[in-house]
Amino acid sequence: MTYCVAMCLEAGLLFASDSRTNAGVDHVATFRKMHRFEVPGERLIVVLAAGNLATTQNVLALLRQRANVDAGQPNLLTVASLYDAACLLGETLREVIQRDGPTLAQANIDAGSSFILGGQIAGESPRLFNIYPQGNFIEAMPETPYFQIGESKYGKPIIDRIVDYQSPVMEAAQCALISFDSTIRSNLSVGPPIDLLCYERDALVPSLVRRIGEDDVYFAQVRKAWADGLRAAFAALPPLSNEDVP
Amino acid sequence: MTYCVAMCLEAGLLFASDSRTNAGVDHVATFRKMHRFEVPGERLIVVLAAGNLATTQNVLALLRQRANVDAGQPNLLTVASLYDAACLLGETLREVIQRDGPTLAQANIDAGSSFILGGQIAGESPRLFNIYPQGNFIEAMPETPYFQIGESKYGKPIIDRIVDYQSPVMEAAQCALISFDSTIRSNLSVGPPIDLLCYERDALVPSLVRRIGEDDVYFAQVRKAWADGLRAAFAALPPLSNEDVP
Repeated sequence: MTYCVAMCLEAGLLFASDSRTNAGVDHVATFRKMHRFEVPGERLIVVLAAGNLATTQNVLALLRQRANVDAGQPNLLTVASLYDAACLLGETLREVIQRDGPTLAQANIDAGSSFILGGQIAGESPRLFNIYPQGNFIEAMPETPYFQIGESKYGKPIIDRIVDYQSPVMEAAQCALISFDSTIRSNLSVGPPIDLLCYERDALVPSLVRRIGEDDVYFAQVRKAWADGLRAAFAALPPLSNEDVP
Repeated sequence: MTYCVAMCLEAGLLFASDSRTNAGVDHVATFRKMHRFEVPGERLIVVLAAGNLATTQNVLALLRQRANVDAGQPNLLTVASLYDAACLLGETLREVIQRDGPTLAQANIDAGSSFILGGQIAGESPRLFNIYPQGNFIEAMPETPYFQIGESKYGKPIIDRIVDYQSPVMEAAQCALISFDSTIRSNLSVGPPIDLLCYERDALVPSLVRRIGEDDVYFAQVRKAWADGLRAAFAALPPLSNEDVP
């Protein structure tokens, strides 16, 4: 399983992804699920991936290969807009599914993958897209500024409570870490290291790129502070009385 | 959708269920999902139901009808143990699925339902069972003292953090309400009123039975106190520095 979250805020963008993959509980491995395509000062495109690992790796390998060798076709380092980048990812996903899907379907294996693609290209505002397994996609809006893919439910309530379009990027990053903490506690198949990327609007380079491992001192502090804070908040709730006995 | 949670603690039992049902988003209704079978001072059996409403209603109608008219067969008011009660519910579920399942399968409708059954019969300790759609079941143990059915993920992290086997029943009830608050905020298909039942070990009658509606003053206080407490806990997190720029 996987958990990825990304937010498109007034102040910039936030991306976070775990790095645990598993095929059953006895084949657990670590793979990066956050991928960057950059021309510093001109564009930053970040892709988060969830689903069938062969599919996501093939989509990203094709996108990378085609970006590295300019064959005159549009690629992630040359497309004019983030919208075109999302189209390109969707097309590449369809290409891989068309090639590998039928064989996997014969073996009852789900080839499906989801992606989040976001970033900024000079001349545009920061944008964020959620690309479905069929290659179509939606874009984040101020009223719904974040997307999750993978094991999203455990970590959703805290984001709904804390983050809105006006949240500062670093605060959104703290909230994402809390969201990961909740998910990791409840689901064995989501695990560190967590890749975190913060982006301030119009910078066209990341403001923070950090891989947070098992023994990360800051993450340990945040987890402890959050656990203590929750216990304090719980202890301060008004007591439940049993006056309403039937 | 539905959200139900029940806990089997050293001090007693806790049951909570929402009451929203829907067939699509345009057919939303309120149905009680908590059902009691009682002989005050001798037994209290509580059943929570999730899944296909026709299936759950039929199972409970058969259990109720057979408990009301003693035909010499074991029923929920006469079985000797909670284990036998769980067996009886499982059998009744299989009976309904056998009768209605094939027709529903032809229409691609899921007849599946899940149940939580718990309580105490004089002479036994309090017990709690999770009954699967196939009619088989598992029992709660001190290491895993709670079960959820329905839309369980949003509300799971807070229970994992707060509740253990030693938690007092009223504290577990507060935590269940917080768990419902998180679920209701994130999923439109789970909604109040919430049915809450607290049971103290060996009492053989409930200590608290309360239906918590939209305008319940206590629930509003708890929701507000929890939201404020979470915001305070979040504000107190150690700040994230961007010293690790790539």
